[in-house]
Amino acid sequence: MALIVMKFGGSSVGDAERMKRVARRIAERKQEGNRIVVVVSAMGDTTDDLIDLSKQICEGTPAAREMDMLLTTGEQVSVALLSMAIQSLGVPAVSYTGWQAGMYTEAVHGKARITEIKPERVLRSAEEGKVVIVAGFQGMTSEGEITTLGRGGSDTTAVALAAAIKADLCEIYTDVDGVYSTDPRVVKVARKLKEISYDEMLELANLGAAVLHPRAVEYAKNYNVALVVRSSFTNNEGTHVKEEAVMEQGIVVRGIAYDKNVARISILGVPEKPGQLAKVFTALAKEQIDVDIIVQSGVIAGAADFSFTTALTDLDKALAVIESIQPDIGYREATHETNVVKVSIVGAGMVSTPGVAAKMFETISALGVSISLVSTSEIKMSCVIKLDHLNDVLRALHTAFALDTTKQAFVGGPQERR
Amino acid sequence: MALIVMKFGGSSVGDAERMKRVARRIAERKQEGNRIVVVVSAMGDTTDDLIDLSKQICEGTPAAREMDMLLTTGEQVSVALLSMAIQSLGVPAVSYTGWQAGMYTEAVHGKARITEIKPERVLRSAEEGKVVIVAGFQGMTSEGEITTLGRGGSDTTAVALAAAIKADLCEIYTDVDGVYSTDPRVVKVARKLKEISYDEMLELANLGAAVLHPRAVEYAKNYNVALVVRSSFTNNEGTHVKEEAVMEQGIVVRGIAYDKNVARISILGVPEKPGQLAKVFTALAKEQIDVDIIVQSGVIAGAADFSFTTALTDLDKALAVIESIQPDIGYREATHETNVVKVSIVGAGMVSTPGVAAKMFETISALGVSISLVSTSEIKMSCVIKLDHLNDVLRALHTAFALDTTKQAFVGGPQERR
Repeated sequence: MALIVMKFGGSSVGDAERMKRVARRIAERKQEGNRIVVVVSAMGDTTDDLIDLSKQICEGTPAAREMDMLLTTGEQVSVALLSMAIQSLGVPAVSYTGWQAGMYTEAVHGKARITEIKPERVLRSAEEGKVVIVAGFQGMTSEGEITTLGRGGSDTTAVALAAAIKADLCEIYTDVDGVYSTDPRVVKVARKLKEISYDEMLELANLGAAVLHPRAVEYAKNYNVALVVRSSFTNNEGTHVKEEAVMEQGIVVRGIAYDKNVARISILGVPEKPGQLAKVFTALAKEQIDVDIIVQSGVIAGAADFSFTTALTDLDKALAVIESIQPDIGYREATHETNVVKVSIVGAGMVSTPGVAAKMFETISALGVSISLVSTSEIKMSCVIKLDHLNDVLRALHTAFALDTTKQAFVGGPQERR
Repeated sequence: MALIVMKFGGSSVGDAERMKRVARRIAERKQEGNRIVVVVSAMGDTTDDLIDLSKQICEGTPAAREMDMLLTTGEQVSVALLSMAIQSLGVPAVSYTGWQAGMYTEAVHGKARITEIKPERVLRSAEEGKVVIVAGFQGMTSEGEITTLGRGGSDTTAVALAAAIKADLCEIYTDVDGVYSTDPRVVKVARKLKEISYDEMLELANLGAAVLHPRAVEYAKNYNVALVVRSSFTNNEGTHVKEEAVMEQGIVVRGIAYDKNVARISILGVPEKPGQLAKVFTALAKEQIDVDIIVQSGVIAGAADFSFTTALTDLDKALAVIESIQPDIGYREATHETNVVKVSIVGAGMVSTPGVAAKMFETISALGVSISLVSTSEIKMSCVIKLDHLNDVLRALHTAFALDTTKQAFVGGPQERR
């Protein structure tokens, strides 16, 4: 008898009909003879509706603590209704809030990390033969304050709980039927992966493949939780995420991700003095602006140029910071570029395969596309290119790295996280 | 520095504007130098909306435990938003769910009674100068299960919490500006009472005056909590509910209540045998049907007639029970009457004043109205009459018992509990 954690996101339980469908799905899995723990998010637009309500009440930013009190009601509604739906199929079920399920977190609101899980109550109910339904995204501090885990929180709840109860499997149900070699909306011959390693999944998740939240993948890796990503709507096999994933013969790159939320900033003519770069990135960090790829050119006549990328959504804030430190740094000019995209290839085999970088450059160059920034790590390589060329570049890379499948694999909806 | 509990019902916080108005009201009371604990209900129609949602999910009656999980989110949303609203006025505030506020209850769902309150957290926050906002209507069992207190629950939360923290005053804010001598919609010269005793309030509440829930009044009496009922919308004084209320000169009756949710059932020709009545009322009790006034006529030729009242909403169920026991009891005929109303006069002075009953009968008879059932207790007297005569009888009794005021006192909305 396997102990399985099943996680359903907000769109999977978006209305009464979907909720009932999910209930049937869970009941089937239970009737196969498994012990089942379910983690569920707030229904569809509930969280946005609650945020709207808070905006009607106060003009500024509401206290994060009260926001957590408000938003956690969304998942509490979901677990109660899903429990009713399962019970009305004749299957015993019980719902728990985060605090009832023993999900303890740091004393931080809006983006707390899980510190400890006391799963006795969940395990006891599962042993009694009940489907246990736990509210995702939420926890409690040791002081009894209600917290939320921040973005991707329900994935993390599921994986962490699976680790704590030593589940045999953690199933992440989503609106696509697995992890694809790249975005199947762009590349029709994208293939669904049977397996992927934690590290590869982590890179893909961080690089823009929205099917799983990076924090959840990290948790799965750290606690060696057997994960599978599969569809809420079909019975297809899904993609297994595990420590060592088998690579097919002749394939080095597992997948290709892209991220459109990118802008390039260049600071030109920076007088060479010690600590100049540190000043720039300290100033940006103070404003919570994450910097990704950083490239510095050689020094000519005592001055250097350098470029970096930030999130497109942080661009205006970043430019304001750069302008504010001009008197201190003494650079000549700052420029920026939008309408760019970061394309990344990911594969655990890259580190031991020479010529991967060369092949990526060649493939992109052969299309007449120029690369404005490059960054590499052991298992991934990213290039920033003009957004216009994204589709051509994705398709060409997909073919060049032998990822094409002959049949059209994609059947689900868009591969975006909801 | 007084410690004050302020309770606001669902209609007082029905939308964002009302919520902000309540927040200003609380901030003012705080700025007068008081320590403030607020108890609040779910916003307006939230509870009904959640019930509708549960009906979409399951056809039968959902498990009471899951219903409690679902409905308690309504108050959690209220406390979070009210806290934000108060904070945005520059007044520190903190919200607590029932379990966070230490409201422990029996292990019963849907209508739990409070067993213990551990108010340390509430008191500590109040000492720190924060307005403490507690979710009404909800609590937790010693096993960590979420419960609700049932109808009138938020009033009870407020009064019980006031008792536990030894508050100087518990203010119940509602959509009328106090307790009236009778329904001011019917009797224009109804007077707002300055004071009323717990016992009188309890009788009035039980007899249909919906301004305070009987269970809350009982709690206030048992723990001697100083209560005041006042308007959410005006600054008028309100009505004080206390142990000993001063009666004005020459006034014996404090107030007149009526209850339209009444039906009369008569069972005619019941053969005289021991235990016949007990059989009838045991059968009714088994079906959770409350019986109010019971009157038995004398025995004629070995058979008796008797009549009793039940809630109109229970009539069909009651008639079915009566029919089912006919073979056992052997009565001749069962009849019933709807379109009746129970009119009650209440006053602590009635016990020591002769002739009150006579005056009530005379007043009603003088209008040519017949009384079908009568019941009395130390401080109240009830008559069941035809519904058509309600308004005339109310006005006549109000005048007869010297309750009329010269000016028109009523300024608020309808005196019904929301």
